Amino acid sequence: MKQSQLFTKTRKEAPKDEVSKNAILLTRAGFIHKEMAGVYSYLPLGLRVIENIKRVVREEMNNVSGQEFIMTSLQRKELWEVTDRWDDEKVDVWFKSTLKNGVEVGFGWSHEEPITDMMKNYIASYRDLPINVYQFQTKLRNELRAKSGIMRGREFVMKDMYTYTSSDEEHQKIYNKITEAYLKIFERVGLGEKTFKTFASGGAFTKFSHEFQTVTESGEDTIYLSKDKKIAINKEVLNDEVLNELDLKKDDLLEVMAAEVGNIFSFGGAKSEDLGLYFKDENGEEKPVILGSYGIGITRLMGVVVEVLSDERGIVWPKELSPFRVHLVSLGDDEAIKKLSEETYNTLVSKGIEVLYDDRDLRAGEKFADADLIGITTRVIVGKKTLESKMFEVTDRASGETKELSLETLIDELK
Amino acid sequence: MKQSQLFTKTRKEAPKDEVSKNAILLTRAGFIHKEMAGVYSYLPLGLRVIENIKRVVREEMNNVSGQEFIMTSLQRKELWEVTDRWDDEKVDVWFKSTLKNGVEVGFGWSHEEPITDMMKNYIASYRDLPINVYQFQTKLRNELRAKSGIMRGREFVMKDMYTYTSSDEEHQKIYNKITEAYLKIFERVGLGEKTFKTFASGGAFTKFSHEFQTVTESGEDTIYLSKDKKIAINKEVLNDEVLNELDLKKDDLLEVMAAEVGNIFSFGGAKSEDLGLYFKDENGEEKPVILGSYGIGITRLMGVVVEVLSDERGIVWPKELSPFRVHLVSLGDDEAIKKLSEETYNTLVSKGIEVLYDDRDLRAGEKFADADLIGITTRVIVGKKTLESKMFEVTDRASGETKELSLETLIDELK
Repeated sequence: MKQSQLFTKTRKEAPKDEVSKNAILLTRAGFIHKEMAGVYSYLPLGLRVIENIKRVVREEMNNVSGQEFIMTSLQRKELWEVTDRWDDEKVDVWFKSTLKNGVEVGFGWSHEEPITDMMKNYIASYRDLPINVYQFQTKLRNELRAKSGIMRGREFVMKDMYTYTSSDEEHQKIYNKITEAYLKIFERVGLGEKTFKTFASGGAFTKFSHEFQTVTESGEDTIYLSKDKKIAINKEVLNDEVLNELDLKKDDLLEVMAAEVGNIFSFGGAKSEDLGLYFKDENGEEKPVILGSYGIGITRLMGVVVEVLSDERGIVWPKELSPFRVHLVSLGDDEAIKKLSEETYNTLVSKGIEVLYDDRDLRAGEKFADADLIGITTRVIVGKKTLESKMFEVTDRASGETKELSLETLIDELK
Repeated sequence: MKQSQLFTKTRKEAPKDEVSKNAILLTRAGFIHKEMAGVYSYLPLGLRVIENIKRVVREEMNNVSGQEFIMTSLQRKELWEVTDRWDDEKVDVWFKSTLKNGVEVGFGWSHEEPITDMMKNYIASYRDLPINVYQFQTKLRNELRAKSGIMRGREFVMKDMYTYTSSDEEHQKIYNKITEAYLKIFERVGLGEKTFKTFASGGAFTKFSHEFQTVTESGEDTIYLSKDKKIAINKEVLNDEVLNELDLKKDDLLEVMAAEVGNIFSFGGAKSEDLGLYFKDENGEEKPVILGSYGIGITRLMGVVVEVLSDERGIVWPKELSPFRVHLVSLGDDEAIKKLSEETYNTLVSKGIEVLYDDRDLRAGEKFADADLIGITTRVIVGKKTLESKMFEVTDRASGETKELSLETLIDELK
């Protein structure tokens, strides 16, 4: 895409009403637009990053036999009353409204209830299990405060996966597979080194739930980190019993701030019992289906990537999330340079490479500042030197390393 | 995908609470699940069709220089008060709720206001124009009745495009291009022959708006059709003046029921004037930006395709929308047949062909009935005859035509 055509523009000043680094950088670079606190539109560059995150997550969820579908935002009151999660005293993030006929409805902040209710149509026997489904859903949560940019929103995209299994063993098997898939996802989005499987409160059904916590000062959670074992304990469950069980010593652990980027847990058979989701086992005995729930906040993950990977000049996208594969920057208003830039752009695009082509009439310094701010993984310059040597200056945004490549080698590297 | 793994199942009986053909067939075939009237979840097969429709629409919108982004559901009251579209007396489909701090918010039923307000950040001069943006958004509309399955929902997916231009001429140019793109879309989703550009009420800003109406008994609109000119007039604007202007005679027109699958119209400069979106023209003069609005109901379109193209045995998907490219049906429990089916499945998948592979232990009749109901474009049978002749029986769902193809020719035809 030609940058002159992109309707968004970068800006030098931080927006006055933002305090978080992710919102400031993403707004300045033209990825997001704030509609109200915790509610952001995703502009063309931002939507591309979201779609890239979804692609990574989708691939890994499909690898563990996940079947993608999509549920609804509108929620039936009576369903959530069954599990006692309708009352605002019990769940304090509901948005609610009323149909024309006076019936109260809610807007989905979570989806265990409707999916479990729906599964009554499809699960009758152990032969129907296991089932593993997921969606990318826009969740609405009436948060009291929303000051962390896209890290905690009133409206945000979440990947939520649900597993239905016939026994604790079957549940544990798939739970472990999804844990591995999650670690792979965080690796692929550039947070692998800083993200830890974290033992957290398990609620009524299991001893622990597991969070995936990324170490960052912008996080809201305190965790205790074992770098050796690559695990952590959430402060909320840190006690001698837990330390013993995990064979950890408090003194060896590092107290750090972290942001939760994923969480997985089991409802056991409780949710199914409430909602009447039973199956017949091999002996014809009726049993409640075991439900597992697995979330990744897609837009939150985008925010955490910006918090963790950006530098003083702007955003640094990991390769898999970069809104374009390459930022092609044309320097100078020499007609020959413009021609070569245009040709290079067309060649790269014809090879299936996604290019943001800075064809604007601006000084080199402004173009470089914009490229650094936007943070596309690889920058390629077409300038006077390129005309002479036919070699392209190629810079890696993360390391700053620069090399000179022929067009052919460049294409090989980018593909 | 193996059909034995698909968590949905087909059902023989129509759901008791549905009257529309699209909802009955889509529910029976396992594409959708009703959460409440006018509110449907899209199951794996259904989501694939939606994504296919979005792909077609996205390609055509990108072809007219559309830039994709995504806005929010949550809406600021004060913005819609400016244009006098907040009051329930004026707009009767709002869902509204309240933030924790007592501030009233709405849920997006349309998005002209926030997008036009946002554009004040990006439009200052004629040099910034034209701009053409679009999104796929889940719209929420508090409809009094919702009885047409996915054709009229309280929650539905819409593609809405907005153009910002500096003059009526510039507007008309892009408006005409988008009209062509729309006709191409309806052609590609199998509705080309039955869909007509229809002159409808233009509102306050222009004489006409244009609807795209698909002829079907399930539609809610009455239109008057000129088959010669491939245009129609909505009953609401049919009068002598309009007939004269379009050089049509009432007697030559056919009165039919039709469903609106798209609509496009101009707000002129009025919306921009209300919201303060001005640009400086070549002479430094401030002028309101011309706004055009272009909608296609994505889920509605899916419903209309089912209404128009299905037959007495089930759904008939056009090639571009088919949830899988091919339905591979294995017949008989002979081990050699199973082996050949499995090999054929793996070969097709390795060639990048999307396959639903019916590997279930069911009688041939049941499998054929399911295949007909689900409506995948091409059915391929692996049975006893295939073992002997190495030829595959290939049936076109729409025409019922059958031919025998070698694996090699089959792959060529499917790609």
